[in-house]
Amino acid sequence: MTPDEPDDNLYRNSLPEQVAAYMLGNDLLSQSLNMVITTAKLGYSVLEMKVDARMLNGFGICHGGVITALADSAFAFACNSRNELSVASSISIEFLNSAVKNDLLVATAREVMLKNRLGLYEVQVVNQRNEIVALVTGRSYKLQGRYVIQEDRQVEV
Amino acid sequence: MTPDEPDDNLYRNSLPEQVAAYMLGNDLLSQSLNMVITTAKLGYSVLEMKVDARMLNGFGICHGGVITALADSAFAFACNSRNELSVASSISIEFLNSAVKNDLLVATAREVMLKNRLGLYEVQVVNQRNEIVALVTGRSYKLQGRYVIQEDRQVEV
Amino acid sequence: MTPDEPDDNLYRNSLPEQVAAYMLGNDLLSQSLNMVITTAKLGYSVLEMKVDARMLNGFGICHGGVITALADSAFAFACNSRNELSVASSISIEFLNSAVKNDLLVATAREVMLKNRLGLYEVQVVNQRNEIVALVTGRSYKLQGRYVIQEDRQVEV
Amino acid sequence: MTPDEPDDNLYRNSLPEQVAAYMLGNDLLSQSLNMVITTAKLGYSVLEMKVDARMLNGFGICHGGVITALADSAFAFACNSRNELSVASSISIEFLNSAVKNDLLVATAREVMLKNRLGLYEVQVVNQRNEIVALVTGRSYKLQGRYVIQEDRQVEV
Repeated sequence: MTPDEPDDNLYRNSLPEQVAAYMLGNDLLSQSLNMVITTAKLGYSVLEMKVDARMLNGFGICHGGVITALADSAFAFACNSRNELSVASSISIEFLNSAVKNDLLVATAREVMLKNRLGLYEVQVVNQRNEIVALVTGRSYKLQGRYVIQEDRQVEV
Repeated sequence: MTPDEPDDNLYRNSLPEQVAAYMLGNDLLSQSLNMVITTAKLGYSVLEMKVDARMLNGFGICHGGVITALADSAFAFACNSRNELSVASSISIEFLNSAVKNDLLVATAREVMLKNRLGLYEVQVVNQRNEIVALVTGRSYKLQGRYVIQEDRQVEV
Repeated sequence: MTPDEPDDNLYRNSLPEQVAAYMLGNDLLSQSLNMVITTAKLGYSVLEMKVDARMLNGFGICHGGVITALADSAFAFACNSRNELSVASSISIEFLNSAVKNDLLVATAREVMLKNRLGLYEVQVVNQRNEIVALVTGRSYKLQGRYVIQEDRQVEV
Repeated sequence: MTPDEPDDNLYRNSLPEQVAAYMLGNDLLSQSLNMVITTAKLGYSVLEMKVDARMLNGFGICHGGVITALADSAFAFACNSRNELSVASSISIEFLNSAVKNDLLVATAREVMLKNRLGLYEVQVVNQRNEIVALVTGRSYKLQGRYVIQEDRQVEV
């Protein structure tokens, strides 16, 4: 970046994009599973992850915990997209189809409800053939007066 | 082991112990998270896992997917403990307390119901202070005529 | 009906319609709550119910058990729509908005998965303003070789 | 009651008992299903209900919605036992055994967690042979500054 090219990342990147990038940047687990953010909007996020050998369980298919981790990260990015710190209080996961090595999984989280401090999110995890691997319901709770990115840090993102 | 000490592992180890050992032995994800089986009985299993830096999310606490992975493995070992191949159809997870780096988590899975081909399991995940980190309900489905350890492989375990 | 007008109900009504009508005809609880079937197709059903004073809880809003009953009946009609006897193994319900006296609730159940003997259904309950009152996930189990309407009874429906 | 016997109900009855009695007294649905409170303590309640013909579904067994209603009322009395108005945000129900006409069902709700404004409750529904009919997880949300029984009404209970 030269002085002639101002860093307008701040202005280009929406708040949900900043928050998701900040969260993933500090999320060693999601990084180790090679999760990639493809979309981050208000109450909405899309993550991709390729299933590799490290993610398999004793039956040679992708471990349920890994599929849950992907869905949970997508849920976390969506429910924190307004920069108001929110935590998962519970999740329910339906496993519809197995995922195997080299599958490319896409998790799409969308906000269904936001009321008082409670949020409800649905996450759909599909494979590269658009078959549903898992359907997830996430319930979030917004902590009072806490933020993902602090005001003074936000400008640095 | 000297020649004088015959390997009587086979006779000492119960079927649930053989199945759990076999499953974990092929489960790269659970191995990579350093899960250790401490008990394996019919419809019952206990796993331990120490939280390390790789398991943290963007808020510096243990990622929900990792806690789920631990509970899911305990559930899998319990619902397959009769050597009849069973898969998770769905799980529900309540997050009660965060886990942080260096916490020692213990997941105890117990069978609540086994009826037709359906199984219901409850998993409790606690930390080293016996505080509940998560409560998990797992629902399993037994596949017809399929086994975790094949008859002829079983004697080799 | 005059002799000139043959009862061709049997030929007009599809199997899902016959099953739903048969089930509701024997379902005293759903009848007592004045549930009405508006659609019955394969893996799909729609029920309506008007909230009356008898259905209210101590806070003067529709009791969660009544909303669940409506969703559960819609789920039951959908998962039995092939005339293969299926039972609910579990349901999860998210309450989004209260329902009050005189609200007209519409529950729409649709099949998400049918695999081996397991079924997965989503039910959406909305009010007359199309606001979501509840989102329900139903898990069903198909009993082997059992039918809702017996062959010889079916022709009499 | 004679003049010699002062009405000391107020002093005999604990706050949870007052709240549960007040709630059931206004709960037409629970009354119509003949629910009876047998215990009401802090974060804990026990309800009984006898299954009658009106509660049956098309298969001649107790409708899932009725079992849910019983569990949901027990959950509601437990999560409101401190007189701080709380509502159910979601519930999950596992159906283990059918209930039939004349069964006496007992629902026991106990508090598992209360943190910030979130509550987590487990309800067990058993029949007269102590067989588990259903296991229910209830999630509650406490509304700010609202009470079940108002201060000035409380003394009149």
